[in-house]
Amino acid sequence: MADSTQAPFVPRDMGGHKVPDNSPALDYPTPIEPLVELPDQPRLSAADQARTIVAGDSVCVLASLTDDGSPWASVIQYAVLEDGSPVFSLSKLALHGRNLAADPRASIALAAPVPEGQDQGDSGRVTLAGRVEEPGGDERAAAKRAYFDAIPWSETYTDFADFTLYVLRIEKIRWVGGFGRMNSTTPEQYKNAEIDPTAASANHAVKHMNDDHADALLSMARAFSGHSDATSAVVLRADRYGMDLALETPRGRTPGRVTFLERVEDNNGGLRKATVDLTKAAREALSEA
Amino acid sequence: MADSTQAPFVPRDMGGHKVPDNSPALDYPTPIEPLVELPDQPRLSAADQARTIVAGDSVCVLASLTDDGSPWASVIQYAVLEDGSPVFSLSKLALHGRNLAADPRASIALAAPVPEGQDQGDSGRVTLAGRVEEPGGDERAAAKRAYFDAIPWSETYTDFADFTLYVLRIEKIRWVGGFGRMNSTTPEQYKNAEIDPTAASANHAVKHMNDDHADALLSMARAFSGHSDATSAVVLRADRYGMDLALETPRGRTPGRVTFLERVEDNNGGLRKATVDLTKAAREALSEA
Repeated sequence: MADSTQAPFVPRDMGGHKVPDNSPALDYPTPIEPLVELPDQPRLSAADQARTIVAGDSVCVLASLTDDGSPWASVIQYAVLEDGSPVFSLSKLALHGRNLAADPRASIALAAPVPEGQDQGDSGRVTLAGRVEEPGGDERAAAKRAYFDAIPWSETYTDFADFTLYVLRIEKIRWVGGFGRMNSTTPEQYKNAEIDPTAASANHAVKHMNDDHADALLSMARAFSGHSDATSAVVLRADRYGMDLALETPRGRTPGRVTFLERVEDNNGGLRKATVDLTKAAREALSEA
Repeated sequence: MADSTQAPFVPRDMGGHKVPDNSPALDYPTPIEPLVELPDQPRLSAADQARTIVAGDSVCVLASLTDDGSPWASVIQYAVLEDGSPVFSLSKLALHGRNLAADPRASIALAAPVPEGQDQGDSGRVTLAGRVEEPGGDERAAAKRAYFDAIPWSETYTDFADFTLYVLRIEKIRWVGGFGRMNSTTPEQYKNAEIDPTAASANHAVKHMNDDHADALLSMARAFSGHSDATSAVVLRADRYGMDLALETPRGRTPGRVTFLERVEDNNGGLRKATVDLTKAAREALSEA
Protein backbone atom coordinates (compact mmCIF):
# COMPACT_ATOMS: atom_id res chain seq x y z
CA MET A 1 0.00 0.00 0.00
CA ALA A 2 1.33 3.46 -0.79
CA ASP A 3 2.47 5.34 2.28
CA SER A 4 2.59 9.05 1.62
CA THR A 5 3.21 9.83 5.28
CA GLN A 6 6.57 8.06 5.38
CA ALA A 7 9.49 10.35 6.14
CA PRO A 8 10.91 11.76 2.92
CA PHE A 9 14.14 10.45 1.49
CA VAL A 10 16.92 11.92 3.69
CA PRO A 11 19.97 9.88 2.78
CA ARG A 12 22.65 11.84 4.61
CA ASP A 13 20.76 12.17 7.84
CA MET A 14 21.93 8.99 9.54
CA GLY A 15 20.64 8.14 12.96
CA GLY A 16 20.03 11.74 13.90
CA HIS A 17 23.44 12.92 12.69
CA LYS A 18 23.97 15.35 9.89
CA VAL A 19 26.77 14.01 7.74
CA PRO A 20 29.51 16.63 7.19
CA ASP A 21 28.97 18.48 3.93
CA ASN A 22 32.61 18.10 2.98
CA SER A 23 32.53 14.30 2.98
CA PRO A 24 33.96 13.25 -0.37
CA ALA A 25 32.79 9.68 0.14
CA LEU A 26 29.08 10.38 0.01
CA ASP A 27 27.35 11.35 -3.17
CA TYR A 28 24.13 11.79 -1.29
CA PRO A 29 23.47 15.37 -0.32
CA THR A 30 21.42 16.79 2.52
CA PRO A 31 18.01 17.79 1.17
CA ILE A 32 17.38 21.45 0.43
CA GLU A 33 13.98 23.15 0.17
CA PRO A 34 12.30 22.70 -3.20
CA LEU A 35 11.43 25.89 -5.12
CA VAL A 36 7.94 24.58 -5.78
CA GLU A 37 5.85 23.04 -3.02
CA LEU A 38 4.95 19.44 -3.82
CA PRO A 39 1.91 17.41 -2.86
CA ASP A 40 2.58 14.31 -0.78
CA GLN A 41 4.36 11.83 -3.03
CA PRO A 42 3.21 8.22 -2.93
CA ARG A 43 5.91 5.72 -1.95
CA LEU A 44 6.22 2.07 -1.11
CA SER A 45 5.45 1.60 2.58
CA ALA A 46 8.02 -0.09 4.83
CA ALA A 47 5.81 -3.18 4.68
CA ASP A 48 5.74 -3.07 0.84
CA GLN A 49 9.53 -2.70 0.82
CA ALA A 50 9.99 -5.63 3.19
CA ARG A 51 7.60 -7.88 1.22
CA THR A 52 9.30 -6.92 -2.02
CA ILE A 53 12.83 -7.66 -0.76
CA VAL A 54 11.75 -11.02 0.71
CA ALA A 55 9.92 -11.96 -2.50
CA GLY A 56 12.93 -11.09 -4.65
CA ASP A 57 15.41 -13.68 -3.40
CA SER A 58 15.71 -17.28 -2.22
CA VAL A 59 18.91 -17.04 -0.15
CA CYS A 60 19.07 -15.36 3.27
CA VAL A 61 20.87 -15.71 6.58
CA LEU A 62 19.11 -17.41 9.48
CA ALA A 63 19.91 -16.45 13.07
CA SER A 64 19.19 -19.28 15.51
CA LEU A 65 20.27 -20.14 19.06
CA THR A 66 22.86 -22.77 19.97
CA ASP A 67 22.37 -24.94 23.06
CA ASP A 68 23.99 -22.34 25.33
CA GLY A 69 21.79 -19.55 23.94
CA SER A 70 24.47 -18.03 21.70
CA PRO A 71 23.50 -16.62 18.31
CA TRP A 72 24.38 -18.67 15.22
CA ALA A 73 24.20 -17.18 11.72
CA SER A 74 23.94 -19.49 8.70
CA VAL A 75 23.18 -19.07 5.03
CA ILE A 76 19.98 -20.86 3.98
CA GLN A 77 17.62 -21.06 1.03
CA TYR A 78 13.97 -20.14 1.51
CA ALA A 79 10.66 -19.78 -0.26
CA VAL A 80 7.72 -17.50 0.49
CA LEU A 81 4.06 -18.30 1.19
CA GLU A 82 1.30 -16.09 -0.22
CA ASP A 83 1.07 -14.14 3.04
CA GLY A 84 4.82 -13.42 2.93
CA SER A 85 5.84 -16.02 5.51
CA PRO A 86 9.27 -17.55 4.79
CA VAL A 87 9.51 -21.34 4.45
CA PHE A 88 12.67 -23.39 4.75
CA SER A 89 13.75 -26.98 5.18
CA LEU A 90 16.64 -27.80 7.51
CA SER A 91 18.43 -31.00 8.41
CA LYS A 92 18.94 -31.94 12.05
CA LEU A 93 22.36 -33.18 10.96
CA ALA A 94 23.24 -29.49 10.61
CA LEU A 95 23.70 -27.19 13.60
CA HIS A 96 21.00 -24.71 12.54
CA GLY A 97 18.50 -27.59 12.27
CA ARG A 98 19.34 -28.80 15.77
CA ASN A 99 19.15 -25.22 17.03
CA LEU A 100 15.60 -24.69 15.78
CA ALA A 101 14.46 -28.12 16.96
CA ALA A 102 15.54 -27.12 20.49
CA ASP A 103 14.42 -23.46 20.42
CA PRO A 104 12.02 -22.18 17.76
CA ARG A 105 13.08 -18.54 18.04
CA ALA A 106 14.54 -17.43 14.73
CA SER A 107 15.26 -14.40 12.60
CA ILE A 108 16.25 -13.98 8.98
CA ALA A 109 17.88 -11.08 7.17
CA LEU A 110 18.76 -10.29 3.60
CA ALA A 111 19.71 -7.34 1.40
CA ALA A 112 18.23 -6.28 -1.92
CA PRO A 113 20.59 -6.09 -4.90
CA VAL A 114 22.20 -2.66 -5.27
CA PRO A 115 22.10 -0.87 -8.65
CA GLU A 116 25.45 -1.17 -10.44
CA GLY A 117 27.94 1.46 -9.38
CA GLN A 118 26.10 2.40 -6.19
CA ASP A 119 27.28 1.87 -2.63
CA GLN A 120 26.61 -1.56 -1.10
CA GLY A 121 25.85 0.24 2.15
CA ASP A 122 22.91 2.00 0.55
CA SER A 123 20.90 -1.11 -0.24
CA GLY A 124 17.50 -2.07 1.09
CA ARG A 125 17.61 -4.78 3.72
CA VAL A 126 15.08 -6.46 5.93
CA THR A 127 14.93 -8.42 9.17
CA LEU A 128 12.06 -10.75 10.06
CA ALA A 129 12.01 -12.28 13.54
CA GLY A 130 9.69 -14.67 15.32
CA ARG A 131 9.31 -18.38 15.86
CA VAL A 132 9.41 -21.30 13.45
CA GLU A 133 6.62 -23.85 13.34
CA GLU A 134 6.11 -27.03 11.36
CA PRO A 135 3.11 -26.33 9.13
CA GLY A 136 0.26 -28.86 9.02
CA GLY A 137 -2.52 -29.76 6.60
CA ASP A 138 -3.17 -27.38 3.72
CA GLU A 139 -0.47 -25.03 4.85
CA ARG A 140 2.06 -27.86 4.79
CA ALA A 141 1.10 -28.70 1.22
CA ALA A 142 1.37 -25.04 0.22
CA ALA A 143 4.71 -24.69 2.00
CA LYS A 144 6.15 -27.73 0.22
CA ARG A 145 4.89 -26.49 -3.12
CA ALA A 146 6.38 -23.03 -2.57
CA TYR A 147 9.68 -24.53 -1.43
CA PHE A 148 9.96 -26.94 -4.38
CA ASP A 149 9.04 -24.15 -6.80
CA ALA A 150 11.72 -21.83 -5.42
CA ILE A 151 14.40 -24.50 -4.99
CA PRO A 152 13.75 -27.34 -7.45
CA TRP A 153 16.53 -29.65 -6.22
CA SER A 154 15.03 -29.53 -2.70
CA GLU A 155 12.54 -32.19 -3.83
CA THR A 156 15.40 -34.66 -3.54
CA TYR A 157 15.90 -34.19 0.19
CA THR A 158 12.95 -32.43 1.82
CA ASP A 159 11.18 -35.70 2.56
CA PHE A 160 14.22 -37.30 4.20
CA ALA A 161 13.53 -38.08 7.85
CA ASP A 162 16.13 -35.67 9.24
CA PHE A 163 14.75 -32.68 7.33
CA THR A 164 12.08 -30.48 8.90
CA LEU A 165 9.96 -28.03 6.95
CA TYR A 166 9.47 -24.79 8.88
CA VAL A 167 7.34 -21.68 8.46
CA LEU A 168 8.60 -18.56 10.23
CA ARG A 169 5.75 -16.99 12.23
CA ILE A 170 6.72 -13.35 12.02
CA GLU A 171 6.52 -11.24 15.18
CA LYS A 172 8.85 -8.33 14.34
CA ILE A 173 9.88 -6.70 11.07
CA ARG A 174 12.52 -4.11 10.41
CA TRP A 175 13.15 -2.52 7.04
CA VAL A 176 16.19 -0.36 6.29
CA GLY A 177 16.23 1.29 2.88
CA GLY A 178 19.76 2.64 2.98
CA PHE A 179 21.25 5.77 4.54
CA GLY A 180 18.60 7.25 6.82
CA ARG A 181 15.66 5.42 5.24
CA MET A 182 14.28 2.92 7.72
CA ASN A 183 11.09 1.94 9.42
CA SER A 184 9.54 -0.81 11.45
CA THR A 185 6.25 -2.29 10.34
CA THR A 186 3.83 -4.80 11.81
CA PRO A 187 3.19 -8.44 10.86
CA GLU A 188 -0.35 -7.39 9.91
CA GLN A 189 0.89 -4.62 7.60
CA TYR A 190 3.50 -6.98 6.13
CA LYS A 191 0.85 -9.63 5.44
CA ASN A 192 -1.34 -7.12 3.62
CA ALA A 193 1.48 -5.34 1.82
CA GLU A 194 1.94 -5.37 -1.93
CA ILE A 195 5.03 -6.68 -3.68
CA ASP A 196 6.38 -4.07 -6.09
CA PRO A 197 6.14 -5.77 -9.51
CA THR A 198 8.89 -3.55 -10.91
CA ALA A 199 11.55 -4.66 -8.41
CA ALA A 200 13.07 -7.30 -10.69
CA SER A 201 13.80 -4.79 -13.45
CA ALA A 202 14.27 -1.60 -11.42
CA ASN A 203 18.07 -1.77 -11.10
CA HIS A 204 18.42 -2.38 -14.81
CA ALA A 205 16.11 0.58 -15.50
CA VAL A 206 18.15 2.80 -13.16
CA LYS A 207 21.37 1.97 -14.98
CA HIS A 208 19.75 2.44 -18.40
CA MET A 209 18.27 5.84 -17.46
CA ASN A 210 21.59 7.07 -16.04
CA ASP A 211 23.63 5.73 -18.98
CA ASP A 212 21.42 6.84 -21.84
CA HIS A 213 18.71 9.28 -20.71
CA ALA A 214 20.31 12.03 -18.63
CA ASP A 215 18.34 14.62 -20.61
CA ALA A 216 15.01 12.94 -19.88
CA LEU A 217 15.90 12.66 -16.19
CA LEU A 218 16.72 16.36 -16.04
CA SER A 219 13.41 17.27 -17.69
CA MET A 220 11.50 15.13 -15.19
CA ALA A 221 13.46 16.61 -12.30
CA ARG A 222 12.87 20.23 -13.43
CA ALA A 223 9.19 19.70 -14.10
CA PHE A 224 8.18 17.49 -11.19
CA SER A 225 10.72 17.28 -8.33
CA GLY A 226 10.11 20.82 -7.09
CA HIS A 227 13.70 21.73 -8.02
CA SER A 228 12.94 23.55 -11.28
CA ASP A 229 16.50 24.92 -11.40
CA ALA A 230 18.15 21.48 -11.43
CA THR A 231 21.22 21.33 -13.68
CA SER A 232 21.75 17.56 -13.53
CA ALA A 233 19.81 14.54 -12.30
CA VAL A 234 20.92 11.01 -11.49
CA VAL A 235 18.40 8.32 -10.56
CA LEU A 236 19.25 6.33 -7.43
CA ARG A 237 16.22 4.04 -7.22
CA ALA A 238 13.07 3.33 -9.17
CA ASP A 239 9.88 1.77 -7.87
CA ARG A 240 6.27 1.42 -9.05
CA TYR A 241 5.40 4.91 -7.78
CA GLY A 242 8.35 6.95 -9.03
CA MET A 243 12.08 7.56 -8.84
CA ASP A 244 14.48 8.87 -6.18
CA LEU A 245 16.97 11.28 -7.71
CA ALA A 246 20.22 12.99 -6.76
CA LEU A 247 20.14 16.53 -8.14
CA GLU A 248 22.58 19.36 -8.71
CA THR A 249 21.11 22.86 -8.47
CA PRO A 250 22.66 26.36 -8.26
CA ARG A 251 21.53 26.25 -4.61
CA GLY A 252 23.48 23.07 -3.91
CA ARG A 253 23.01 19.31 -4.25
CA THR A 254 19.86 17.66 -3.03
CA PRO A 255 17.88 14.45 -3.22
CA GLY A 256 14.55 14.70 -4.98
CA ARG A 257 11.73 12.51 -6.15
CA VAL A 258 9.45 12.37 -9.16
CA THR A 259 6.13 10.52 -9.19
CA PHE A 260 4.92 8.56 -12.21
CA LEU A 261 1.60 9.61 -13.81
CA GLU A 262 0.14 6.24 -12.82
CA ARG A 263 1.27 3.50 -10.47
CA VAL A 264 3.03 0.75 -12.47
CA GLU A 265 1.04 -2.50 -12.32
CA ASP A 266 3.31 -4.94 -14.13
CA ASN A 267 6.92 -5.81 -14.82
CA ASN A 268 6.35 -6.21 -18.54
CA GLY A 269 7.66 -2.88 -19.79
CA GLY A 270 5.74 -1.02 -17.08
CA LEU A 271 8.68 1.00 -15.82
CA ARG A 272 9.74 1.86 -19.34
CA LYS A 273 6.28 3.15 -20.24
CA ALA A 274 6.06 5.10 -16.98
CA THR A 275 9.37 6.89 -17.60
CA VAL A 276 8.53 7.60 -21.25
CA ASP A 277 5.12 9.03 -20.26
CA LEU A 278 6.62 11.13 -17.48
CA THR A 279 9.35 12.45 -19.78
CA LYS A 280 6.72 13.50 -22.32
CA ALA A 281 4.62 15.17 -19.64
CA ALA A 282 7.73 16.91 -18.29
CA ARG A 283 8.69 18.30 -21.69
CA GLU A 284 5.15 19.57 -22.23
CA ALA A 285 5.09 21.20 -18.81
CA LEU A 286 8.48 22.83 -19.38
CA SER A 287 7.57 24.15 -22.85
CA GLU A 288 4.43 25.75 -21.40
CA ALA A 289 6.36 27.36 -18.53
CA MET B 1 47.43 -24.16 3.28
CA ALA B 2 46.62 -26.96 0.87
CA ASP B 3 44.69 -29.78 2.46
CA SER B 4 45.03 -32.97 0.49
CA THR B 5 43.32 -35.00 3.20
CA GLN B 6 40.02 -33.17 2.86
CA ALA B 7 37.14 -35.37 1.76
CA PRO B 8 36.93 -35.42 -2.02
CA PHE B 9 34.25 -33.50 -3.85
CA VAL B 10 31.03 -35.49 -3.39
CA PRO B 11 28.32 -33.10 -4.42
CA ARG B 12 25.33 -35.40 -4.35
CA ASP B 13 26.12 -36.98 -1.03
CA MET B 14 24.21 -34.60 1.20
CA GLY B 15 24.22 -35.10 4.92
CA GLY B 16 24.76 -38.82 4.65
CA HIS B 17 22.04 -39.29 2.03
CA LYS B 18 22.65 -40.49 -1.47
CA VAL B 19 20.57 -38.32 -3.76
CA PRO B 20 18.34 -40.39 -6.07
CA ASP B 21 20.00 -40.91 -9.43
CA ASN B 22 16.83 -40.04 -11.28
CA SER B 23 16.63 -36.53 -9.86
CA PRO B 24 16.29 -34.25 -12.85
CA ALA B 25 16.95 -31.17 -10.74
CA LEU B 26 20.55 -31.92 -9.89
CA ASP B 27 23.29 -31.72 -12.44
CA TYR B 28 25.73 -33.07 -9.92
CA PRO B 29 26.25 -36.79 -10.23
CA THR B 30 27.39 -39.30 -7.65
CA PRO B 31 31.10 -39.92 -8.14
CA ILE B 32 32.16 -43.06 -9.95
CA GLU B 33 35.56 -44.75 -9.70
CA PRO B 34 38.21 -43.17 -11.94
CA LEU B 35 39.83 -45.45 -14.53
CA VAL B 36 43.26 -44.22 -13.49
CA GLU B 37 44.24 -43.95 -9.84
CA LEU B 38 45.13 -40.39 -8.91
CA PRO B 39 47.59 -39.07 -6.36
CA ASP B 40 46.09 -36.93 -3.61
CA GLN B 41 44.97 -33.69 -5.18
CA PRO B 42 45.78 -30.45 -3.37
CA ARG B 43 42.76 -28.34 -2.44
CA LEU B 44 41.96 -25.27 -0.45
CA SER B 45 41.47 -26.26 3.18
CA ALA B 46 38.22 -25.40 4.95
CA ALA B 47 40.16 -22.61 6.69
CA ASP B 48 41.45 -21.28 3.33
CA GLN B 49 37.90 -21.37 1.95
CA ALA B 50 36.52 -19.52 4.96
CA ARG B 51 39.26 -16.86 4.87
CA THR B 52 38.76 -16.42 1.14
CA ILE B 53 34.98 -15.98 1.38
CA VAL B 54 35.30 -13.49 4.26
CA ALA B 55 38.02 -11.54 2.41
CA GLY B 56 35.92 -11.36 -0.75
CA ASP B 57 33.01 -9.28 0.50
CA SER B 58 32.11 -6.37 2.77
CA VAL B 59 28.44 -7.16 3.46
CA CYS B 60 27.29 -9.97 5.75
CA VAL B 61 24.50 -10.77 8.19
CA LEU B 62 25.12 -10.40 11.91
CA ALA B 63 23.26 -12.57 14.42
CA SER B 64 22.97 -10.93 17.83
CA LEU B 65 20.74 -11.38 20.89
CA THR B 66 17.84 -9.12 21.83
CA ASP B 67 17.18 -8.29 25.48
CA ASP B 68 15.08 -11.44 25.97
CA GLY B 69 17.77 -13.64 24.43
CA SER B 70 16.07 -14.04 21.04
CA PRO B 71 18.18 -14.15 17.88
CA TRP B 72 18.21 -11.06 15.68
CA ALA B 73 19.61 -11.13 12.15
CA SER B 74 20.67 -7.88 10.47
CA VAL B 75 22.61 -6.95 7.35
CA ILE B 76 25.85 -5.09 8.14
CA GLN B 77 29.02 -3.98 6.42
CA TYR B 78 32.36 -5.22 7.67
CA ALA B 79 36.09 -5.11 7.06
CA VAL B 80 38.76 -7.70 7.81
CA LEU B 81 41.97 -7.45 9.88
CA GLU B 82 45.17 -9.14 8.73
CA ASP B 83 44.44 -12.18 10.90
CA GLY B 84 40.98 -12.56 9.32
CA SER B 85 39.02 -11.06 12.22
CA PRO B 86 35.93 -9.15 11.07
CA VAL B 87 35.56 -5.51 12.12
CA PHE B 88 32.34 -3.50 12.12
CA SER B 89 30.96 -0.29 13.49
CA LEU B 90 27.43 -0.21 14.88
CA SER B 91 25.24 2.52 16.30
CA LYS B 92 23.53 2.07 19.65
CA LEU B 93 20.57 3.84 18.06
CA ALA B 94 20.09 0.60 16.08
CA LEU B 95 18.84 -2.60 17.69
CA HIS B 96 21.89 -4.69 16.71
CA GLY B 97 24.15 -2.06 18.34
CA ARG B 98 22.13 -2.20 21.57
CA ASN B 99 22.14 -6.00 21.39
CA LEU B 100 25.93 -6.25 21.25
CA ALA B 101 26.42 -3.59 23.93
CA ALA B 102 24.31 -5.76 26.26
CA ASP B 103 25.63 -9.20 25.21
CA PRO B 104 28.84 -9.54 23.18
CA ARG B 105 27.97 -12.94 21.73
CA ALA B 106 27.76 -12.63 17.95
CA SER B 107 27.94 -14.60 14.74
CA ILE B 108 28.20 -13.57 11.12
CA ALA B 109 27.44 -15.48 7.93
CA LEU B 110 27.80 -14.81 4.24
CA ALA B 111 27.80 -16.66 0.93
CA ALA B 112 30.35 -16.48 -1.88
CA PRO B 113 29.08 -15.39 -5.29
CA VAL B 114 27.89 -18.34 -7.42
CA PRO B 115 29.19 -18.71 -11.00
CA GLU B 116 26.58 -17.53 -13.53
CA GLY B 117 24.06 -20.22 -14.40
CA GLN B 118 24.84 -22.40 -11.38
CA ASP B 119 22.54 -23.17 -8.46
CA GLN B 120 22.47 -20.61 -5.63
CA GLY B 121 22.27 -23.53 -3.23
CA ASP B 122 25.67 -24.75 -4.34
CA SER B 123 27.62 -21.71 -3.20
CA GLY B 124 30.35 -21.55 -0.61
CA ARG B 125 29.21 -20.03 2.66
CA VAL B 126 30.78 -19.46 6.01
CA THR B 127 29.75 -18.87 9.62
CA LEU B 128 32.01 -17.24 12.19
CA ALA B 129 30.84 -17.14 15.81
CA GLY B 130 32.31 -15.73 19.01
CA ARG B 131 32.26 -12.50 20.98
CA VAL B 132 32.75 -8.90 19.96
CA GLU B 133 35.26 -6.70 21.72
CA GLU B 134 36.18 -3.04 21.34
CA PRO B 135 39.79 -3.05 20.13
CA GLY B 136 42.33 -0.84 21.86
CA GLY B 137 45.69 0.71 21.02
CA ASP B 138 47.38 -0.45 17.82
CA GLU B 139 44.62 -2.87 17.04
CA ARG B 140 42.06 -0.07 17.25
CA ALA B 141 44.07 1.98 14.77
CA ALA B 142 44.38 -1.01 12.43
CA ALA B 143 40.67 -1.79 12.77
CA LYS B 144 39.69 1.77 11.91
CA ARG B 145 42.04 1.80 8.94
CA ALA B 146 40.67 -1.50 7.65
CA TYR B 147 37.09 -0.35 8.14
CA PHE B 148 37.62 2.99 6.39
CA ASP B 149 39.44 1.26 3.53
CA ALA B 150 36.62 -1.21 3.01
CA ILE B 151 33.77 1.27 3.51
CA PRO B 152 35.01 4.77 2.64
CA TRP B 153 31.87 6.64 3.70
CA SER B 154 32.14 5.10 7.18
CA GLU B 155 34.68 7.82 8.02
CA THR B 156 31.77 10.19 8.27
CA TYR B 157 30.10 8.40 11.16
CA THR B 158 32.46 5.96 12.88
CA ASP B 159 33.69 8.60 15.33
CA PHE B 160 30.19 9.66 16.36
CA ALA B 161 29.59 8.98 20.02
CA ASP B 162 26.83 6.40 19.49
CA PHE B 163 28.96 4.24 17.17
CA THR B 164 31.11 1.45 18.57
CA LEU B 165 33.90 -0.22 16.65
CA TYR B 166 33.94 -3.97 17.25
CA VAL B 167 36.29 -6.83 16.43
CA LEU B 168 34.74 -10.30 16.38
CA ARG B 169 36.89 -12.67 18.46
CA ILE B 170 36.27 -15.91 16.59
CA GLU B 171 35.56 -19.05 18.62
CA LYS B 172 33.82 -21.27 16.04
CA ILE B 173 34.02 -21.51 12.26
CA ARG B 174 31.90 -23.49 9.86
CA TRP B 175 32.49 -23.64 6.13
CA VAL B 176 30.02 -25.17 3.69
CA GLY B 177 31.20 -25.40 0.10
CA GLY B 178 27.91 -26.47 -1.47
CA PHE B 179 26.19 -29.85 -1.73
CA GLY B 180 28.07 -32.23 0.54
CA ARG B 181 31.23 -30.16 0.81
CA MET B 182 31.56 -28.86 4.34
CA ASN B 183 33.97 -28.80 7.21
CA SER B 184 34.61 -27.12 10.51
CA THR B 185 37.96 -25.54 11.13
CA THR B 186 39.62 -23.92 14.14
CA PRO B 187 40.29 -20.24 14.88
CA GLU B 188 44.02 -21.08 14.81
CA GLN B 189 43.77 -22.68 11.35
CA TYR B 190 41.63 -19.80 10.13
CA LYS B 191 44.16 -17.24 11.38
CA ASN B 192 46.99 -19.03 9.56
CA ALA B 193 45.02 -19.83 6.41
CA GLU B 194 45.80 -18.36 3.01
CA ILE B 195 43.34 -16.29 0.98
CA ASP B 196 43.01 -17.72 -2.52
CA PRO B 197 44.23 -14.88 -4.78
CA THR B 198 42.22 -16.24 -7.72
CA ALA B 199 38.84 -15.97 -5.98
CA ALA B 200 37.97 -12.57 -7.45
CA SER B 201 38.32 -13.82 -11.03
CA ALA B 202 37.43 -17.51 -10.62
CA ASN B 203 33.72 -17.21 -11.49
CA HIS B 204 34.54 -15.23 -14.60
CA ALA B 205 37.13 -17.87 -15.57
CA VAL B 206 34.58 -20.66 -15.02
CA LYS B 207 32.07 -19.00 -17.32
CA HIS B 208 34.72 -18.25 -19.94
CA MET B 209 36.03 -21.84 -19.93
CA ASN B 210 32.52 -23.28 -20.23
CA ASP B 211 31.44 -20.81 -22.93
CA ASP B 212 34.53 -20.91 -25.12
CA HIS B 213 36.87 -23.77 -24.21
CA ALA B 214 34.87 -26.98 -23.92
CA ASP B 215 37.54 -28.76 -26.00
CA ALA B 216 40.34 -27.69 -23.66
CA LEU B 217 38.29 -28.77 -20.64
CA LEU B 218 37.70 -32.17 -22.17
CA SER B 219 41.42 -32.62 -22.87
CA MET B 220 42.30 -31.72 -19.28
CA ALA B 221 39.60 -34.04 -17.95
CA ARG B 222 40.76 -36.99 -20.10
CA ALA B 223 44.43 -36.50 -19.30
CA PHE B 224 44.30 -35.61 -15.62
CA SER B 225 40.97 -36.33 -13.87
CA GLY B 226 41.40 -40.12 -13.95
CA HIS B 227 38.33 -40.38 -16.23
CA SER B 228 40.20 -40.86 -19.50
CA ASP B 229 36.98 -41.85 -21.26
CA ALA B 230 35.20 -38.57 -20.52
CA THR B 231 33.02 -37.39 -23.41
CA SER B 232 32.22 -33.93 -22.04
CA ALA B 233 33.48 -31.74 -19.21
CA VAL B 234 31.96 -28.68 -17.54
CA VAL B 235 33.85 -26.71 -14.92
CA LEU B 236 31.93 -26.01 -11.71
CA ARG B 237 34.58 -24.16 -9.70
CA ALA B 238 38.14 -22.97 -10.12
CA ASP B 239 40.65 -22.21 -7.38
CA ARG B 240 44.41 -21.67 -7.13
CA TYR B 241 45.06 -25.45 -7.06
CA GLY B 242 42.80 -26.67 -9.86
CA MET B 243 39.24 -27.07 -11.10
CA ASP B 244 36.21 -29.12 -10.05
CA LEU B 245 34.49 -30.61 -13.08
CA ALA B 246 31.21 -32.34 -13.94
CA LEU B 247 31.95 -35.11 -16.43
CA GLU B 248 30.01 -37.34 -18.79
CA THR B 249 31.55 -40.77 -19.41
CA PRO B 250 30.23 -43.98 -21.05
CA ARG B 251 30.12 -45.33 -17.47
CA GLY B 252 27.88 -42.50 -16.28
CA ARG B 253 28.17 -38.95 -15.02
CA THR B 254 30.67 -38.08 -12.32
CA PRO B 255 32.40 -35.20 -10.65
CA GLY B 256 36.13 -34.96 -11.23
CA ARG B 257 39.02 -32.67 -10.52
CA VAL B 258 42.14 -31.56 -12.35
CA THR B 259 45.17 -30.04 -10.62
CA PHE B 260 47.16 -27.17 -12.12
CA LEU B 261 50.87 -27.76 -12.84
CA GLU B 262 51.72 -25.11 -10.23
CA ARG B 263 49.73 -23.38 -7.53
CA VAL B 264 48.53 -20.00 -8.79
CA GLU B 265 50.15 -17.16 -6.81
CA ASP B 266 48.43 -14.08 -8.19
CA ASN B 267 45.17 -12.79 -9.62
CA ASN B 268 46.89 -11.05 -12.52
CA GLY B 269 46.27 -13.58 -15.28
CA GLY B 270 47.34 -16.44 -13.02
CA LEU B 271 44.28 -18.61 -13.61
CA ARG B 272 44.46 -17.99 -17.34
CA LYS B 273 48.11 -19.06 -17.50
CA ALA B 274 47.40 -22.11 -15.32
CA THR B 275 44.56 -23.33 -17.59
CA VAL B 276 46.57 -22.66 -20.77
CA ASP B 277 49.57 -24.57 -19.37
CA LEU B 278 47.40 -27.45 -18.21
CA THR B 279 45.63 -27.63 -21.58
CA LYS B 280 49.00 -27.82 -23.35
CA ALA B 281 50.24 -30.53 -20.97
CA ALA B 282 46.97 -32.44 -21.44
CA ARG B 283 47.24 -32.36 -25.24
CA GLU B 284 50.84 -33.55 -25.06
CA ALA B 285 49.91 -36.37 -22.67
CA LEU B 286 46.97 -37.44 -24.86
CA SER B 287 49.04 -37.41 -28.08
CA GLU B 288 51.63 -39.65 -26.40
CA ALA B 289 48.99 -42.07 -25.12
